Order: sequence, then C-alpha cells, then structure tokens
Amino acid sequence: MAHINQIDPFDFIIFGATGDLTMRKLLPAFLRRFHAQDFQEDARIICVARSAHSPDQYREQVRNALSEFAPTAARDAETLNKFLALVQYVSLDATKEGSDWSGLEEHLNDPQRTRVFYLATSPALYAPLCAALADHSLITPITRVVLEKPIGVSMETAAEINDGVGRFFPEESIYRIDHYLGKEGVQNILALRFANPALEKLWSSDAIAHVQITAAETVGVGKRGPYYDESGALRDMVQNHLLQVLCMVAMDAPASLQADDLRNEKLKVLNALRPMTPDMVRHNVIRGQYTAGRIDGQDVPSYAEDLGQDRASNTETFVAIRTKIRSARWGNTPFYLRTGKRLAAKTTEIVLQFRPQMWPIFTNTPSPGRLVIRIAPDEGLSLVLATKDPSAGGFRVRNGVLDMSYENQFTIEYHDSYERLLLDAVRGNPALFIRRDEVEASWRWIEPILNSWRHALSPLEPYPAGSWGPASTRALLARDGALWHEDMLT
Amino acid sequence: MAHINQIDPFDFIIFGATGDLTMRKLLPAFLRRFHAQDFQEDARIICVARSAHSPDQYREQVRNALSEFAPTAARDAETLNKFLALVQYVSLDATKEGSDWSGLEEHLNDPQRTRVFYLATSPALYAPLCAALADHSLITPITRVVLEKPIGVSMETAAEINDGVGRFFPEESIYRIDHYLGKEGVQNILALRFANPALEKLWSSDAIAHVQITAAETVGVGKRGPYYDESGALRDMVQNHLLQVLCMVAMDAPASLQADDLRNEKLKVLNALRPMTPDMVRHNVIRGQYTAGRIDGQDVPSYAEDLGQDRASNTETFVAIRTKIRSARWGNTPFYLRTGKRLAAKTTEIVLQFRPQMWPIFTNTPSPGRLVIRIAPDEGLSLVLATKDPSAGGFRVRNGVLDMSYENQFTIEYHDSYERLLLDAVRGNPALFIRRDEVEASWRWIEPILNSWRHALSPLEPYPAGSWGPASTRALLARDGALWHEDMLT
Repeated sequence: MAHINQIDPFDFIIFGATGDLTMRKLLPAFLRRFHAQDFQEDARIICVARSAHSPDQYREQVRNALSEFAPTAARDAETLNKFLALVQYVSLDATKEGSDWSGLEEHLNDPQRTRVFYLATSPALYAPLCAALADHSLITPITRVVLEKPIGVSMETAAEINDGVGRFFPEESIYRIDHYLGKEGVQNILALRFANPALEKLWSSDAIAHVQITAAETVGVGKRGPYYDESGALRDMVQNHLLQVLCMVAMDAPASLQADDLRNEKLKVLNALRPMTPDMVRHNVIRGQYTAGRIDGQDVPSYAEDLGQDRASNTETFVAIRTKIRSARWGNTPFYLRTGKRLAAKTTEIVLQFRPQMWPIFTNTPSPGRLVIRIAPDEGLSLVLATKDPSAGGFRVRNGVLDMSYENQFTIEYHDSYERLLLDAVRGNPALFIRRDEVEASWRWIEPILNSWRHALSPLEPYPAGSWGPASTRALLARDGALWHEDMLT
Repeated sequence: MAHINQIDPFDFIIFGATGDLTMRKLLPAFLRRFHAQDFQEDARIICVARSAHSPDQYREQVRNALSEFAPTAARDAETLNKFLALVQYVSLDATKEGSDWSGLEEHLNDPQRTRVFYLATSPALYAPLCAALADHSLITPITRVVLEKPIGVSMETAAEINDGVGRFFPEESIYRIDHYLGKEGVQNILALRFANPALEKLWSSDAIAHVQITAAETVGVGKRGPYYDESGALRDMVQNHLLQVLCMVAMDAPASLQADDLRNEKLKVLNALRPMTPDMVRHNVIRGQYTAGRIDGQDVPSYAEDLGQDRASNTETFVAIRTKIRSARWGNTPFYLRTGKRLAAKTTEIVLQFRPQMWPIFTNTPSPGRLVIRIAPDEGLSLVLATKDPSAGGFRVRNGVLDMSYENQFTIEYHDSYERLLLDAVRGNPALFIRRDEVEASWRWIEPILNSWRHALSPLEPYPAGSWGPASTRALLARDGALWHEDMLT
C-alpha cells in the first residue's frame, strides 16, 4: 500500500539539526517511513547545525536517538545502516556573515531533485535563513520551506515573519507545520464529516447544543520553562492547535481535499469567530496558573517552582474560552476551548453534545447524547445515546456507549504526526499545512485576548495541579446550562 | 428498582396449562419475576387443562420444567417452593358442554382481585372459551384476556376471532401478545428514536437509503411441522413479528408512551404500506422452501423430509419482501423484510443503511454507513461509519464500527420477552400488546400475497439449507443497488 505513492529522489535539509525536534521527531519519523519503504536510498537528508561534528560523529548521535525514539525500526540493523548512510552532516552558521557554504552547496548539486528546507530553528532566524539560501542560489523552482511554530507572537510579528520568508518563497512553497494536523484523529474529523452524509446532517446548531475541544496535559512545563513563560498556553496551544481543530470541526464541506479548498474553508471559520472585545474577554476567557498539587498520587510543584524563578510569573498555564461562530451553520452553538498543564488527565478530545429532546416521552431523562472524538492518548470515537434501560420493567432510559478504538480496528502505520507531514512536504501536498492568511486570522482573533490580559483586565486564577483548572471554568459553561465532559454522567 | 412497581394481588389463569408454551415460557417467566420480588405470595397462578392431574402431580411437572427453563431462579429452593405453592391446577374441559367448573370457580372467589385469563390454546377455542367464561360469570370489570398468536389465518378469520372475543371483553381488556414486543432490543427502538433527537433527525428517506429487517433461523421446523405446514413463514413470522418491528422502526413520534398513542402510530404505518397487487407480489415477494444442505458442518434434511410426508408441500419456509411506506417520512426508502428457517445464521436484526455521499471528495468510497440494531442472539447496536484509513498516507477512508453490546453495558434483568409481557398484562399496561385494528390491518396487507400464492402466481423457489434463501433474494435488492447485510463489505 505504502509503496504505491513512492517518492521521487529528494534532498531534505534540516537547519537546527542537533536540536531536540530533529533528534526526537524528524529523524525518527524519516527512519520509520524509510523502514516502511516509502522512499528509497536515493534520498538525502542533510543535517545542518553550527556545531563542529564530523558526519560520523553526528551519525553516532543520530543512531542513539533513533534507538530511543524509533526503536522498532532501529532494531532492523540493515535498514538502520542504510538510513544512516543517507544522513549527511554539514557544520554551518548559516546566518553569520562570511560562513563557508561550500559544504552544503556540494550536497545540493542537482537542481532537478525535490528540495525541502526544514527550519527547526528560532522563528527569528526564518527570514534571515531564507535570505541566506537565496544569496547562495539554493532556492530552485521546486524548493519548499517548512516552518515550525510559533509563527510570531502577535499579529504584527507573524506578518513580519511571513513577509520575510515570502520575499524568497512563493506562498505555495511555504509549509507551515502544525503537528496536530498530522494526527490521525484530527484528519479523521474530515473523513467522519465528509464521507458520512448521515453525520454531516447532524453537524450544525440544529442538532448540536455545544462543542468542547480539550487538550489537557498532566505534565508541567519541564525543560521548556523559559520558552513557555514567554509564550503561555494561549500562544502555545490555542492560536495554532486548538483553532486548527476547531476549524476541522466547524468548517463547511470543502469542494475537494486539495490544499486551497480545505484552507479556504478553514479561513472562513477563523474569520467567522466572534471577535473578542475587552468585555467579552472578561466574561468568556479564563486564564489560570497551576499551584502545587497531586497528580497520579504524586506531589507536584507549582508553576513558579517549576520555573525556578524568584519573581512571580504572570503567564497562564491554563486557558478556557467560550466563543461562537457567526455562521448559518453554527450561530446557535457555543464552542468551548480549553487547554492546560498539570490537569487531572492527559486527553485531547472533541465533544459534540446533542440537543436534548424537546418533549421527552420517557419517564426519565439522562444526560443528552454526544459524540466524542478522541485524539489522544488513544484515538477513537464514542457515541453516547439514550437506550432502553433493560433492568427496569417500564420505559426508563439510560445512556449507553457505542465505541470504536482505532487501535483495535486498524493497524496504525503512522505513529507520529511528523511521519505524515514530512512526507507530505516532500511530495508537495500542502493540504495539512497552514496558509499565511490562516495564521494571521488566528492572531487577529487571539490578539484582543492578549491585549486585554496585558492590561490586567482579567485575573490570573490559580488552580491546584491535578484539577481541571480554576473553579470559574465550570461557571463558564454553567451559564449555557452545559457541563464539561468529566462532569457529565454517562 | 423492580420492587417499586410492585403489583397488587392477582389471579392469573392459564388455559392450556400442560402445553409447551406454559411449561417453557409462561411459568418460568413468572418464577423469574417472583424471584426478583416483582410480586408477592398473595398471587395465584391457576393452571387449567383437560388432563386429570392432581395439583401435586402437576406441580411436580412444573418443578421439572422450571429446573430446565428457569434454572437460576429454580436453584433457590425456598423461592421455588414458595412459587409452587402459588400454582394451582384445575382439570377442566372448558369448551365441553356440562363440564364441572366448580374447581375453577372456587379459586376465583374474589372479584376485587385483578384477574387475567391467558389462552394458550388453539385460536379456534378463543371465542368459545370466552363464551364459557361469561356463562360462568367469571368476567369481572377488572378481568383481562391474553391471546396468543395466530389471531386467524386471514383477514376474515382474524375478524371472526376478534368478534368472538369482543362479544365478552371490551377491546381495552383484550391483550394480544406478540412476544417480539417483549424483547429489549425491540423496545430499545423506541428509546433510540424518541429519546435521541439526533438519531431521529436521520430517521427518514432523507438520510436512510433502505431498511432491512431480518429474522433468520438455522433450525428447521422440528416438532412444529404439522402446524407450520398449515401456516408457513408469511403467517408465522411476517404478519405479526416482522410487521410489528417494521412499525417500531417506521412510526412517527407518539404523543406519549401510552398504549393507544403508540398503537395509533403503528396503525398509521400498517395502513401506509403500499398495497400488494398480484403483479407487485410477483416482483417484490420471494417465497422459498429449504432443500437438504449443511449448517454448522452438519448435514440437514430438506423441509419435505423434516415433515416426513410423502407428498410435496407447497408451504414456504422463507419469505423476502420489498415494500414501501407511503408517507412523507419514508416515501423514498424501500423496506426489505425476510425471514426463514435453515438459513446460514441465527440472527434478528434491523439494518438502516445511510445514503451514500452525493459528491465524494475522498479518493475511495467504502460501503455506505449504517446503523444495525441487533435483537438476537445478542442485543446491541453497531454504527458503521467511514473513517480515515490510518494505514495510508493519503486521504483514503474505510469503514469502522462503533459498537455497543447490551450484555457488556447493562445487567439485563429481563431475559425473556414473556417476563415483561406477562407482568404488563397483570399491571394492566397494554402498550406492548396488539390492538384489533393493527391485527386486521396486517392481514389486509398480507392477504393479497397469500391470494397470489394460492393462485400459483409466484414460484416456490428451493434454497439449500445453510444458505441465505433462494438466489432471487439477492436480485430483489440489486434492483435498488442494495445488498443484504451479509453481502456488505465492512
């Protein structure tokens, strides 16, 4: 199956080749796809960083990383060795005046081959790097560039980055990665909605009382503390991942699965989000920061302690948002987004709660039914429906659950989002990457929240690690007569 | 839970007390409900038959039957003995002139108690038995009569029986039993449809391409040969059970779950069935009879051999029908009914197939999704939906199954339909019993098929035991571009 879409020879150049992302995600993803024979030994993966490694030293480092992060594929010694032979290392400080580019230029000697630059560096370097690539005439007509998040920290900085990269690459060659779109569970939203006309019939305010999108983590900030403290949950999770998921859930049917058809529909959703005024931020957005607490029976420290700073931080580790989409389809359905660290459970999921029966004829009324799309940790679907209570003689009903687990039904070949997305970039399919106007529309909606917070118009509310966020989070939904998923009775 | 609806003292009188139904179904059902404390020791179960048993002889027979057919409850010796003490036996040839009714009259000495006569006899005796009950002044204002199927063998004979019984009982006291309505899986159709507004939104020709209702058996006619050969599959299964299931699937929302609200809606469906002309019978009804074959690796004989007759029989052991419901809701959805003996599998189920995507945007198209309501052998639900194929890099879809098994989710207290229905009769809730007009509307629709067959306008098609019926059964659906469930690919 995988061999059918075999890929032409390509040169894949990673800047930031000694970083965590390269070692934990990018190279393991490539190894797994190589092991699955998705591409051949004519590919080259050229790893660029400032450090003065020899190629062999670097390969040893990669070999260790692969054994840890792609253990199954790495256990096949023949494949592993063949793969390592594709990996080149180039030591280069690319944005430094007068660096020697000949090492990289030597590798990129065939302008006919597909060429992909992956910038796993600080976003501040995206534009300068692209300028340097252009200076050295390394941008061929079939060259693409992949950009990691964050694309900016505000509307203005995002536009700056997009302008800077856009001077050297046409928009169709710029692949802004959001690894959430590489998740099977997220892509499955498209299949569920647009390959099942029956489900699509339910997909509007007519049948759906509310939608909740949750990305909850139990971990704290860990090593990312300094970065995270600059960013916060809103920038780190909502502006990109949660809004992309919201787009997949809320968009109208695209004309096709071609990139721009999909992205036009997502953009329509982003533009239809009810803009946030300061007053609306105050009533519809909760910001929280975790204090010490217990998770899985273990005491865990507060955010401040995790940061190891003396001064208090004003950064949110939790955010919950109530919003609406101004469209014919969704006008009457609140959307609730929430994400946070040190929450009670690790879960990424979407809950679409059905409207209750307007005129119940049964003697009791359980919680309204719902469709739950589970994205992590296990991918699957649950449909909660009222069913006849078989242990009662009358006509009582109670909820039953129809369940599907991806793992039980399918052999999942793609274990990591990057496997899918890296090969899509190589193949030249940008459908699961973010277009400039999407990024900017997201920031346009996010920015009033950031501004409002900057002016301290909303309090930063503490929540104990191991809880589901500040107490006010519950009240946010109670206003609509709704409950968060963990509060619903089956 | 069960105790809440505890029942007033009652006298339950079974005519035909030595028959299979009484021994295998009625008394075991009562024992189980007694064991569950649904009623008390003040109840009396008065068993009437012609045989000259002493009450103790009869109780021994009952004790053996209970050990076999209600083993769990019968293992509780104290309960079993208490229950047997409620069982009386009266030897009486009730329709014979000059019989001595004093034995029965002695037991029925309290006209204030709920009184239920259960006629587990030949339908030919229903009217004479009721006349005799009236003669002996045994019909009080709170007396009900339960009638087993078949209510007649045609429109005319059904009306005769209904008239005969109706002379002595008002319609609201006549409980025509169809044990399919006692099945949890059948009652669950009501819960699914009318407690889940989301499902009800799909419940019409807009979303449903076709509906198939199957009641397939692997057994042959067994001991019922002589009865069955007079009846055939159409009378034995379709006129009652399958049409009742069809009504539950197809009816509009009842105003309440009160008996007449439910039955008015069922009647509406029966009256909306497209009438069968001889020409339509020829093209929309398959009649089959099994020949020798293999089931579960065992050779099994033909129907003729099972009957042990010399002459060939013209009775159908299989019937498949394609029909439509002339209503705004269903006008564009064919309904397929089928039932038969010696088929490939034992299963009772309803399949609602969703319409396919009108404009597919995925690269492949699996079978359309469907909702499967399993009634037997295990009760449950499956929802088949197109999901993203996680083993392919592109946008292929394949069907996944969301499943719910009643047994896994609930403690099922009601194991047998009769448990529910007998107590409903005692409680005076006729919601799950058939009203006269329903019976007659069913016969009105069935009769043209019988007439057409009598005039040999359709062939009786052979099918090998262990198959899914005559080959033409497949063609019946192929005309609509549809497949029977077993032919669908997941």
